[in-house]
Amino acid sequence: MADERAFTASLARFFAAPAGVRVPIGDDAAEVPNRGRESVLCCDPVVERVHFARGADLALVGRKAVNRNLADLAAMGARPDWLLVSLVLPRAMAAAARTRLLRGIRAAARAGRCAVVGGDVATHRGPLVVTVTAVGHLRGRALLRSAARAGDSIHLTGPVGNSRAGHHLSFRPPLAEGEWLARHGGAAAAIDVSDGLLLDLWTVLAASGGLGAELHEDAIPRRPGVGAGRRALLRALAEGEDHVLLFTVRSGRRLRRGGPLRALARRPIGRVVSRPGLWLVDSRGKRTRLLARGWQHALAGA
Amino acid sequence: MADERAFTASLARFFAAPAGVRVPIGDDAAEVPNRGRESVLCCDPVVERVHFARGADLALVGRKAVNRNLADLAAMGARPDWLLVSLVLPRAMAAAARTRLLRGIRAAARAGRCAVVGGDVATHRGPLVVTVTAVGHLRGRALLRSAARAGDSIHLTGPVGNSRAGHHLSFRPPLAEGEWLARHGGAAAAIDVSDGLLLDLWTVLAASGGLGAELHEDAIPRRPGVGAGRRALLRALAEGEDHVLLFTVRSGRRLRRGGPLRALARRPIGRVVSRPGLWLVDSRGKRTRLLARGWQHALAGA
Repeated sequence: MADERAFTASLARFFAAPAGVRVPIGDDAAEVPNRGRESVLCCDPVVERVHFARGADLALVGRKAVNRNLADLAAMGARPDWLLVSLVLPRAMAAAARTRLLRGIRAAARAGRCAVVGGDVATHRGPLVVTVTAVGHLRGRALLRSAARAGDSIHLTGPVGNSRAGHHLSFRPPLAEGEWLARHGGAAAAIDVSDGLLLDLWTVLAASGGLGAELHEDAIPRRPGVGAGRRALLRALAEGEDHVLLFTVRSGRRLRRGGPLRALARRPIGRVVSRPGLWLVDSRGKRTRLLARGWQHALAGA
Repeated sequence: MADERAFTASLARFFAAPAGVRVPIGDDAAEVPNRGRESVLCCDPVVERVHFARGADLALVGRKAVNRNLADLAAMGARPDWLLVSLVLPRAMAAAARTRLLRGIRAAARAGRCAVVGGDVATHRGPLVVTVTAVGHLRGRALLRSAARAGDSIHLTGPVGNSRAGHHLSFRPPLAEGEWLARHGGAAAAIDVSDGLLLDLWTVLAASGGLGAELHEDAIPRRPGVGAGRRALLRALAEGEDHVLLFTVRSGRRLRRGGPLRALARRPIGRVVSRPGLWLVDSRGKRTRLLARGWQHALAGA
């Protein structure tokens, strides 16, 4: 099996960005020049039996399809404006089921203060695939995966783990937090935690020039149901679909007061170090090396 | 079975457009305000066994996935800037096959003078689904489906029919024609002929307030392989995936000279009339009423 991250990295080389594109393939979303104000674009599918189980509430599926994209915009610090929705529907899908899906899409668009302005519908003898494109804009500088430096403290906007119990369908994209961190708050790097905290943190460290990180075992906020103990924590760090922001703050710089952050987001969970690798540090200061495990789509090799 | 067009029309009501959106759901692409210059957005999937056969050349599949969207922008008179590509890949798809798909996408983007700046990759145990989003801009007014009037002459930028023999994979989106028609040429309404000339013409007539049209049997350009005779013509008019522009020109107004149009595009194939309906007129002036048949995705009823 090939590695999804390696494939995505190869896409960035394959589709060379034209001059003027500040952020091409490789971050949470693309950033392109737009008449003096940067546009931010992203596009993510949700697929039956990959991103949701057959029989899932279709209102929640629609919501997830939108919110996955809004979480990507949030991780850039962007504000969403427009959505496009491409529906590939199983031929036998009933009208009531279609309506439920659309209601979920519409509710999530309203909550994100953006509008569905277009899309397409096709049917087939296969699984439901809902692909949403989100277009937004920046009112400051983007939060990039590549902006971490050794010495930065590491933060999360919310707890992680146990997403499969329902959070993966019902999460709220951290739009207010992302925009505030980019404009006022003082964040350096950021990423949407979608593939698991370890893998997404690793992505930030690699994009920032091959850095490492120490995480403080007791400082990492756990979602209800994760359970106590290190094994439960490690599962939570690799599970994915948390859709909180992982962000870093420069050493010596403080997050600004006020704003939409929860109190837990102000307490560092660890720090960036210059030596590549990931370490978990327990309450007695004992360090354990971790592997960057998480969710990756399996790809066939050559 | 419900009607795909009725479903799409219901989407336009369901997702009410905010103020300032000139063209929401219901045209070839959406037109949204953007800092003094309108943006045009569209998003169309290609699905294995719906839009291409299993075993099709994946370079052509990638090309089609891009060009379907560029044809939608062309029908608005827009120029493409950015593409996003969402890939839902069969898990067993080999690396060489993936590369071939990407090469087709890249070649079509280059030909359309736009750039792939983002997207996403997922894998599943199902068919290949490639969803491309295109973002472009207008340098004048958009060509709308709703802008036809009784008395307009009807034109095509290229011949129709026999698309399944290969044209549906290898067509060139009429970008130069669309932009020229919108900026200089003098077109009124336009649509991308994707579901068959009769159905797409009917869409223009319905969007323009419930008009009708007369088509001149001998004036409709046929693609090689369509064959002679009325039955062959009617098949060609309902087949779809022609991806030429159907456009109208106001009575008394002439298409401007020069520009990228082929000679055949300057010869009307018929005219818009106030009485709803479609008629085919033969060389002796005999009129035959037609049904608006074409390609529609089957949807399950209530």
